[in-house]
Amino acid sequence: MAEQAPPPTNATAPTLVDVARAAGVSRQTVSNVINAPERVRPETRERVALSIARLGYQPNRLAQALRTNTSRMIGYRIEPPTPHALDPFHDRLLHSLSEAGRAADRHLLLFPADDDAAEIEVCQRLHRGAGVEAFVLYGVEAQDPRPRALIDSGVPFVAFGRTAQGSEEYAWVDVDNFFGIAAAVDHLVRRGHRRIGYVGLKPEENVGGQRARGWHAAIDRQQLPSDCHALVLCGQDTVPAGMQMAFALLERSDPPTAIVTASDTLAVGVMRAAQQWGVEVGRDLAVVGFDDSPTAAALDLSSIRQPMAEIGQQIMATLLNLTPAAGGRPATPQDSTDTLLMPTLVIRSSSASPAPRTT
Amino acid sequence: MAEQAPPPTNATAPTLVDVARAAGVSRQTVSNVINAPERVRPETRERVALSIARLGYQPNRLAQALRTNTSRMIGYRIEPPTPHALDPFHDRLLHSLSEAGRAADRHLLLFPADDDAAEIEVCQRLHRGAGVEAFVLYGVEAQDPRPRALIDSGVPFVAFGRTAQGSEEYAWVDVDNFFGIAAAVDHLVRRGHRRIGYVGLKPEENVGGQRARGWHAAIDRQQLPSDCHALVLCGQDTVPAGMQMAFALLERSDPPTAIVTASDTLAVGVMRAAQQWGVEVGRDLAVVGFDDSPTAAALDLSSIRQPMAEIGQQIMATLLNLTPAAGGRPATPQDSTDTLLMPTLVIRSSSASPAPRTT
Repeated sequence: MAEQAPPPTNATAPTLVDVARAAGVSRQTVSNVINAPERVRPETRERVALSIARLGYQPNRLAQALRTNTSRMIGYRIEPPTPHALDPFHDRLLHSLSEAGRAADRHLLLFPADDDAAEIEVCQRLHRGAGVEAFVLYGVEAQDPRPRALIDSGVPFVAFGRTAQGSEEYAWVDVDNFFGIAAAVDHLVRRGHRRIGYVGLKPEENVGGQRARGWHAAIDRQQLPSDCHALVLCGQDTVPAGMQMAFALLERSDPPTAIVTASDTLAVGVMRAAQQWGVEVGRDLAVVGFDDSPTAAALDLSSIRQPMAEIGQQIMATLLNLTPAAGGRPATPQDSTDTLLMPTLVIRSSSASPAPRTT
Repeated sequence: MAEQAPPPTNATAPTLVDVARAAGVSRQTVSNVINAPERVRPETRERVALSIARLGYQPNRLAQALRTNTSRMIGYRIEPPTPHALDPFHDRLLHSLSEAGRAADRHLLLFPADDDAAEIEVCQRLHRGAGVEAFVLYGVEAQDPRPRALIDSGVPFVAFGRTAQGSEEYAWVDVDNFFGIAAAVDHLVRRGHRRIGYVGLKPEENVGGQRARGWHAAIDRQQLPSDCHALVLCGQDTVPAGMQMAFALLERSDPPTAIVTASDTLAVGVMRAAQQWGVEVGRDLAVVGFDDSPTAAALDLSSIRQPMAEIGQQIMATLLNLTPAAGGRPATPQDSTDTLLMPTLVIRSSSASPAPRTT
């Protein structure tokens, strides 16, 4: 007894022709059902849709990409993990971008690159040769060569961070580091601290500079003793560097009762130095970190949290704006006030009020 | 005065036809220079190569992908970051895979999925519709439905981890968790510990079970007091859970002098509990973590390190073996002894010898 033929196996994936044959229509009609359904009569549309479903036909995404010259892929340079950094910020951005891309049917394509020049070259190659729509440039620095190079070669991108000059020529998303540090200072002042120190990142880099300026500005705005401005040390983003800077502050004759740090890594260094120095964090010394890493939660460290989900969504929305499906020409970069996102302070036990004996 | 025309701008990227015209050869000859250079005479090859270089022509990777039905992309499901996990193990694997893929000219394509069923569906769709060559299945569990489903639908993959049954039917790479925990116990015994406790992960999961069995086996092999087998607690992989389990061990009348943990997250919990209990880690109590996370380094925690670079390389080599460029049929899964990788112990100050008063 003849049975209905089973759907083809994957070894011979069904084609448009198979669908057309099964539905008794032309290939063009099947194509129309997929790409311009309004051109097809409802009954035919339904018949074709049933055949598509029964056969398990899937329009070939590569062929679509070739036709539309877009692969619906967003390129992202993946860097090797930094051995000393506690906070996988880069990775968290990757997750948040990936999640944001899902809603827009965009996938992330990861590529490694040894330096900025290599990244530029790979972006150009992937854009022209593989149809990667646009790129996310991570950690754009004041003197970063990448935005200019990609603008000049017509490769769409969104920068996370900004160059010192020319940022009006491209779309960027950034976090208000100045505001984040100021929020930490305000919190410590509300808790009763008046001598607040700062352990920061190298100020010649964007993030380090913004955070250091945020700290100085908050000290002035809060009208704290002006010698607080001397309680500042900046260095490498490592635990030993954080420890060393903390010792330098703690051994002063007038040590701070609170230390704001520019990273959770530095904050862990400060906490370890305090322990060795015999002062208890959360009682004798308040400490605030930056990034709200899993380590901050594990160590009960108050920390400034960057809005990761929002960063990913904003970058993805900006990317889609750059490369509209029906066009391909970059839109005007958004107004920058839309793309400066605000961090928040997560308060834990490390930032308690000063101990009575030190007030 | 007529000048040589400048190379076309990106707006009109050079085509094969442009190269052929510039070199004064046929399109087929240009194609041969790219795909089968041995068929072309050296002088012609050089002339075409010069034209390619001068025009900045790049073979269209999408078109190539369509022709060969492969995009040179490896699919990888990206999961949301686990809020409590200190160790970005998933992310580190992503980095190591990405780096390993570079040598083989493979890019990672990331996609999110809510659960195993969604991941299976996306793998099938991306394989058939977008030419993604093969997939990496992260964290395959004893009862995992993913390997069977992908085998049945003809989607090539390599598993990281293994199912309880049927793992001979597919290629996998795994880490010897049993060996890793045993190495930690051996180290503590060499340091003079005889009462060693264990704070572990849920034993019904692959990793948790392997690590717990490794601990019990090492206690027996080292002929430690058999009541050590009672010093075992397993639970959630969180800092509070680690603290709670550590308190339960520390409040015994015969507390252990050393605690092996199944993760750095649990180890941080143990360290915090010890601090609150008034015993000093590295003097009164030895602690060993698992994963050698950045936090372990920051807190001077001895920890078992998984060979990340080797894991990525082994997975990528196995993937390439599955999907040879000139075929597409999975090769025979490798001999499993090749794919069980050995962790190593990183010794820091947290695992010192027992304090004199406790020996």
